[in-house]
This record gives sequence, C-alpha cells and structure tokens, in this order.
Amino acid sequence: MKKGLFISIEGPDGSGKSTQISALKNYFEERGVDVLLTREPGGTPISEKIREIILDKNNKEMDYMTEALLYAASRAQHVAQVIKPALTAGKIVICDRFIDSSIAYQGYGRGLGDCVRVINEYAVRGCMPDVTFLLKVDPKVGKERINEDEQDRLEQEKLEFHQRVFAGYIDMEKRFDRIISIDACRSIDEISADIISYIEKIISQRLL
Amino acid sequence: MKKGLFISIEGPDGSGKSTQISALKNYFEERGVDVLLTREPGGTPISEKIREIILDKNNKEMDYMTEALLYAASRAQHVAQVIKPALTAGKIVICDRFIDSSIAYQGYGRGLGDCVRVINEYAVRGCMPDVTFLLKVDPKVGKERINEDEQDRLEQEKLEFHQRVFAGYIDMEKRFDRIISIDACRSIDEISADIISYIEKIISQRLL
Repeated sequence: MKKGLFISIEGPDGSGKSTQISALKNYFEERGVDVLLTREPGGTPISEKIREIILDKNNKEMDYMTEALLYAASRAQHVAQVIKPALTAGKIVICDRFIDSSIAYQGYGRGLGDCVRVINEYAVRGCMPDVTFLLKVDPKVGKERINEDEQDRLEQEKLEFHQRVFAGYIDMEKRFDRIISIDACRSIDEISADIISYIEKIISQRLL
Repeated sequence: MKKGLFISIEGPDGSGKSTQISALKNYFEERGVDVLLTREPGGTPISEKIREIILDKNNKEMDYMTEALLYAASRAQHVAQVIKPALTAGKIVICDRFIDSSIAYQGYGRGLGDCVRVINEYAVRGCMPDVTFLLKVDPKVGKERINEDEQDRLEQEKLEFHQRVFAGYIDMEKRFDRIISIDACRSIDEISADIISYIEKIISQRLL
C-alpha cells in the first residue's frame, strides 16, 4: 500500500465499538502491520482540552451550535496533528467515532441539519475515512449496556434523542457508500469476523 | 425602538477600540439607555473557557482550522446566551470584535478563505450587527501602541500577518454595507464624534 488506510467505527453508545476496535488492532498487529488507534473527541492535547469543555456536566447551558463547532474544532486538530501524518506515513488508522458521529448526533439528534456536514467537511479538509463500520444496535439495548454512573452529559440525554441519532445513522448508511453496516446484536466473534472480511476485501482490491 | 441595536467595533490591535467603546457606552448611559458591553472571544463562562484554549501561548501546534472553529464555537455561545437575549429585550449591544474579526484574521490573515464566513454565518444564525465600525489604523502603528509583554499568541504574529488582516478589513468594507470605516489616526474626541454621528443617523432613521 502506498498510503495508509483510514478506518472509522461508528454506532450508538454500548454498541461494542471498543471491543471491536481492539479485536481489529490485534488482527493487524499479528500480521506485523503498524496501527494507530485514536478516538474522538480527543486524540491530541488541544483536542483533549476541547473534549473537557464538551463533556463537562456543568456546561448545561451549552448551545447546540457551540457543541457542534467544538466537535469540529477538536476534529480539525486531530486530523492535522495525528491522522494525516499517520496516513502519510502509510499507517493503518482506526478511529473510534469520526465525522459521522457529528452528523448523527448534532445534525440529526440535535436537529441542526446539514450544516453540520458542511462545517465538518471544512474541518477535515478532504481527510475522509476509506471505510466506516457502523455497529448497528437499537439504542435502547445499547443504553442498557452502559453503567448509569459512568454516563457523561451526552449519554444522559433522553432515549428519544438517541433514537433520532440512530435514525440518522441509518439514513447516512444509504447516502454514503463508505459506510458498512454491521449487525452488532451478534456475538463478539461473529461481528469481528464480519469486519475483518470487509477489511481483507478492501486491502486485496488495493493490491490488485 | 422595538428591538435593540447591535453595534460591533473592529480594527487592528492598538486601533483604540476599547477607548471608543467606553465613550459610546457613556453616550448612551447619559441618555438613560441600557447598554450591554461584551467582547469576543469570550462573553460567557463557556466562551471564556474556549478563549483560554485559543489564546494560550503553549498551544503553538494549533491548526489554523481548529483556531477558526474555536472562535466560531465561542461566538455561537455568545450569541445564544448573551447577544440574542439582550437584543430581544430591546437593549443596545456593543461588541468588541465579532464575525468580521474571524473573517479578517482567519479568512484573510491565515489564508483559510471564504469558508470562515460560511462557518460563522452558521454560528450566529442570522444575528448580525446592525452596524460595524472599522477603526482604521495601519497595523504597524497599532502594533507600536501595544506593550510587547502583554501580547497574547495572536498579537505576537509577524507584522506581515497583520498586514494581510488589514487588507482583509479594507476588502470587507467594500463588500458589506453595514461596515463603516473610521479614520482612527485622529484624536479620541474626533473619532468618537464621528461614531456618534453615525449612530444618531441610524437611530433617527429607525424612528422615522
């Protein structure tokens, strides 16, 4: 591969993203391939500072547009400082949530609409995932999997909000070819096998 | 007046914005009119936290797009929480820097281009100044007026950057009718008289 591969993982809270990311990381590392794991919001010292403002439970008066712009700011820094350099160096980058989370949570969930996509396309300046795995699980099931005490400001939102986010993901899956939908109600190994088979298909297509 | 009046003051650092703002405030208060003074970036607890990240001299690795999005995020919160409610209550709002600072500093100065205007128009959601006074002074003269030790990360930028910002302001003055250019190389009283005469014209037009 001349350049790296950019994989993002999306899905409701409790859909098993972390588990699948570490399985995917193991898969690559067993084959001696350099992998960079990263997450949103965060991934750089500046992004982490922005993340603190976004997720602080005391910031209840935060306007939805402010929230969307802070996510985009954090992402711009993450792309410039971490993701782009790693891809240029030929690495595999696996990102826990990326642009689609903003479109789903702020665009559909908060009802800000398509401006969230436009703002974020400016933020990433062409650095889009090669493939995005959407771990599909009903948000009600996902919510039950998370410990109530550990929930941050966004996770505490009403189930109705999470249903709108989920509907957004389903809609985006139809709009964007790079999004691969994965049934996340199955066993960890079944889901993992599914993801890896897609990855192998992408890599072999690149080599042919 | 049914609704308030939204005035923003723009210009290079050292152009005398603070002095003119307090003169304008006195003018209104002597006439028993409620004035809200506010500034950018900042103006709300959340905006102040964002301001800290933007102006922190340690954040040297900050990407230009991150910077632009942080300013827009701070502005969105400022508009939602401070400016819109004050205007709805019929107040006069005087804002030290607003959307034009972003377009000048990030769009022209940093070379990010017109996306800065687009992002910020989403951020303010229609809440634009009724009039903007641009205090015009050559950035070289402005820079000399400021104490070197007190300069933050942006003020420390090279003169060349400030020349691009100034050229941006001059260009915007031609593009946007609401921007009134004021020669800021004159005495404080002359500048102040000029600004007040514009304000009186706007208010009388509204009442007629």
